[in-house]
Amino acid sequence: MMGITREQALALDAADRLAPLREQFVLPEGVIYLDGNSLGALPKAAEARVRSVIAEEWGQRLIASWNTAGWIDMPRRIGDQIARLLGVGAGEVAVADSTSVNLFKVLSAALRIASQRDPSRRAVVSERSNFPTDLYIAQSLAAQFGCELRLLDADKLDAGIDADVAVVLLTHVNYRTGAMHDMAAVSRRAHDVGALIIWDLAHSAGAVPLALQADGADFAIGCGYKYLNGGPGSPAFVWVDPRWVDQFEQPLAGWMGHAAPFAFDAQYSPATGISRYLCGTPVVLGMAALECGVASVLAAEAYGGMPALRAKSLALTRLFAAQVKAFADDYGLRVVSPIEDPQRGSQISLACESGGYAVMQALIARGVVGDFRAGGALGEPDILRFGFTPLYTRFADAWDAAGQLHDILRSGIWRDARYAARHAVT
Amino acid sequence: MMGITREQALALDAADRLAPLREQFVLPEGVIYLDGNSLGALPKAAEARVRSVIAEEWGQRLIASWNTAGWIDMPRRIGDQIARLLGVGAGEVAVADSTSVNLFKVLSAALRIASQRDPSRRAVVSERSNFPTDLYIAQSLAAQFGCELRLLDADKLDAGIDADVAVVLLTHVNYRTGAMHDMAAVSRRAHDVGALIIWDLAHSAGAVPLALQADGADFAIGCGYKYLNGGPGSPAFVWVDPRWVDQFEQPLAGWMGHAAPFAFDAQYSPATGISRYLCGTPVVLGMAALECGVASVLAAEAYGGMPALRAKSLALTRLFAAQVKAFADDYGLRVVSPIEDPQRGSQISLACESGGYAVMQALIARGVVGDFRAGGALGEPDILRFGFTPLYTRFADAWDAAGQLHDILRSGIWRDARYAARHAVT
Repeated sequence: MMGITREQALALDAADRLAPLREQFVLPEGVIYLDGNSLGALPKAAEARVRSVIAEEWGQRLIASWNTAGWIDMPRRIGDQIARLLGVGAGEVAVADSTSVNLFKVLSAALRIASQRDPSRRAVVSERSNFPTDLYIAQSLAAQFGCELRLLDADKLDAGIDADVAVVLLTHVNYRTGAMHDMAAVSRRAHDVGALIIWDLAHSAGAVPLALQADGADFAIGCGYKYLNGGPGSPAFVWVDPRWVDQFEQPLAGWMGHAAPFAFDAQYSPATGISRYLCGTPVVLGMAALECGVASVLAAEAYGGMPALRAKSLALTRLFAAQVKAFADDYGLRVVSPIEDPQRGSQISLACESGGYAVMQALIARGVVGDFRAGGALGEPDILRFGFTPLYTRFADAWDAAGQLHDILRSGIWRDARYAARHAVT
Repeated sequence: MMGITREQALALDAADRLAPLREQFVLPEGVIYLDGNSLGALPKAAEARVRSVIAEEWGQRLIASWNTAGWIDMPRRIGDQIARLLGVGAGEVAVADSTSVNLFKVLSAALRIASQRDPSRRAVVSERSNFPTDLYIAQSLAAQFGCELRLLDADKLDAGIDADVAVVLLTHVNYRTGAMHDMAAVSRRAHDVGALIIWDLAHSAGAVPLALQADGADFAIGCGYKYLNGGPGSPAFVWVDPRWVDQFEQPLAGWMGHAAPFAFDAQYSPATGISRYLCGTPVVLGMAALECGVASVLAAEAYGGMPALRAKSLALTRLFAAQVKAFADDYGLRVVSPIEDPQRGSQISLACESGGYAVMQALIARGVVGDFRAGGALGEPDILRFGFTPLYTRFADAWDAAGQLHDILRSGIWRDARYAARHAVT
C-alpha cells in the first residue's frame, strides 16, 4: 500500500462497511484523533446516559436507584458485556477499581496459588518494557512474597520462563511499540514450566480479537478508558479462570466481594466466582459511561465484530506506516511497531532521534492528536505514538496524518519555540 | 423540645440562617430525604459540571484535558478542599479509590510502622459493630501480618487497648446507631499504650466538626458519597499524619503514587507526602461530581461553617427524637442513638422489635426516605435509620417524618403485603 493517493484513501473509506460506526461518537471538528489508545473518544450515548443517571437516578430516585436503576448490578452486568470481547463466559468478568488495583488482586491470588502448588518457585517474570504501573505493583508484591522479579526483554522471555517461575505477568500489546505477544504461545510456555500467567489487556480489549480461555490465560485485567471508550479514569475489569477463582480470597476483601454484602456479617465470607474480586462500592458515574463505551464496541457485532474491526485496524496501521516510510529516513524517523500483522496491535510508533516532543506538539496544533513517550533509562528511543481506533478512524485520516507529519518535518516548523513547552502529562 | 407543634417547627425553619444552603440541591418533590448518610442528595452544580466534563473536556478537548482541564490535579485539589473539613493542612489529603481500598493502604502502612517500632505487638483492635468492610479488610491484613484481630464492644475499648496493641481501627460515628467516639480521648488512650490509631470518617466528614491533627489521629479514611454529597460510588479520601506519611511505601504501588508518574521509570520510587497513597488513574467523572459535593459543604463557611452545621444537625436530631419518643413505647420502638449531644452523629436510629422493614417501606411509600438495617448475629436489634443532613433538611421535615411514622404505626398500614417484599440492597 506504499504511496497511495488521497483519492485512493477516500475510496477505501467509501468502501468501508464499518464506516457507520463512527456516527456513534462525538469527534471535534478539524481533529484527527489518533490517541484513542490513551483516552477513547466520547460515545454520544454516554452523554445522555450519564445525564440521566445524574438527573433522574441520583437526583430524583436517590438511594432507591441501587435497586431500581440496577446500580448494584453494574460490576457484573458490564463485566458480562466485556466478556464477549475477551472470549470468556458470562459471569467470569467483573468491573471494579483501577487496572493497578485489579493487578494487585490477581497477582496476590496467583502468587498464593503458585506457592501452594510449589513453594520453591520464587520468581515473577515480566517484560522490562512493561507499563510501569504493572512493574510497580509487581515490585510491591514480589517484595511481600519474598520473590525475585525477573524483568526480561521480549526476545528473552522463552528462555527466562523456567522452572523457578511462579507467575508470568505480561501486557499483551506493548504501550510504547504496539508489539503484540502471541498469547497462546507464551501462555503455553508458562504452563509447560508449571507457572501461571496474567495478561494485562490495556491495549488489547476492544482493539484486537481475544480468546483468553482458548489461549490459556489464567488471569487478566484491563482498562476501560482506552479502546473501550469508557471515559477518563473509567473503572477497569478483571477476569479469573473459573479453575482458580474460588481457590483464594484476594486480599482487598471489601464488602462488595462478600457472599452477602447486605447481610452486614462481621465475618468475611467471599462470594463465589468473580464477585469476590469486587472490593468497595462501585463508582456509578464511571460505570455508566463505561457501559456506553463497551456498547460502542459491541455495536460492531452487526458488522462482523472484532475480526472486522481488526481487519480495518490492520489496514489503517499498514496504510499509515507505508505513507510514513516514504519519508521517514530523511528525518531520522523509524517505524518501531512490528511490520508483521499478527505481531502488531492497533497503533504505529515512530522512533525519532530528536525533537519528538516538539514535532508532536506541532502535529497537535494542526489537529493531528497522537502522543509522545520519552525514551527511558533503558536506552529506548523517544517515540511518537499514533493509535488507530477502527471504530472512528478513517483511511483518509491516516493518510492526512502522515501528510501533516511530513509537512511539519519538511518545513521545520516544529523548531518554533511555541512547540517546546512541556506539559505535566505528556 | 418534647411535643412541639408543626407551627413551631416552621418557625425554626424561618429563623434558620442555614436555610439558603438547601437551594444548592436538587430534591424531589414530595420527598423528605433522610438517607443522606447513605447517599447524599444531588448538588445542582454537579449536574452542570459533569455535563461540561463530558461534553467539553472529554468530548472536545479529549486527551489534552489531563493538563488543560486539570484532571491530573483532581486527587490533590479535592483533597485540599476536604482537608478544610478535617482540621488538617493543605497537601495532607488525597482523593482516590474506595474507602475499603484506602483502608487497605493505611492499615498496611500502620502495621508496618508498628512492627518496626515494636515487633512484639500482635493485636489490631476494632469495634465489634464497626462497618463490615472495615472488619473484612482488617481480617485480611491481620492474617497477612500474623496479628490477632481483637473485636470489642465500645464500652470495653479502654480496657482492650493494651500494650499488645499495634493498631486501633475505629469508625468515628457508628453506621447503625450514630454513636460517636470521643476522638481525642480514644486517640490518647491508643497513644498512651504505644499504639497507632486509624479513624474511618465515613459518617463524620461533612457531618460533624473534625480536628484530626488536634485530636491525635494517625491515619484517616472516608467516604465521598454520604455527607460530602459526591454521588453514588464517589471516590474516597485518605489522610496520613505528616509524621508517618513518608515512612512506608503503601503496598498498592500504582503509577499515580510514583514520584514522577510520567517519567515512566521502570523502578517504583514513591512520591513524597500523601501522593504516594494514590494508585491508578483517577476516575474523573466521579471526581468532578465529588468536587461539587464538597463545595456544597464548604458553602456553609459563609454561614458559620461546620460548627453552625453541627448545631443545626443536633437540633434536628433532638427534635426528631423528642417527637418519636412521645409515641415510641406504644409500638415497641426505642431511640438507640445517644441522647447526649457530644456522643451523637447526625442520625437517629430507632430499634424496633418487629416489622421494621415493612414500616420503612411504608414510610418510603409516603415519601419519607430513611433506611432499614437488620439486626445482626450479635443480637443487635433491627434498626430504622434516619440521617439528618443539615445542609438540606428542614425542621418541618423532621417534624413531618416523625408524624408520618406515628401515623403508619397507629394505622397499622405497614402490615399491608405490599410493604413486605425485600430488595437486593436494603
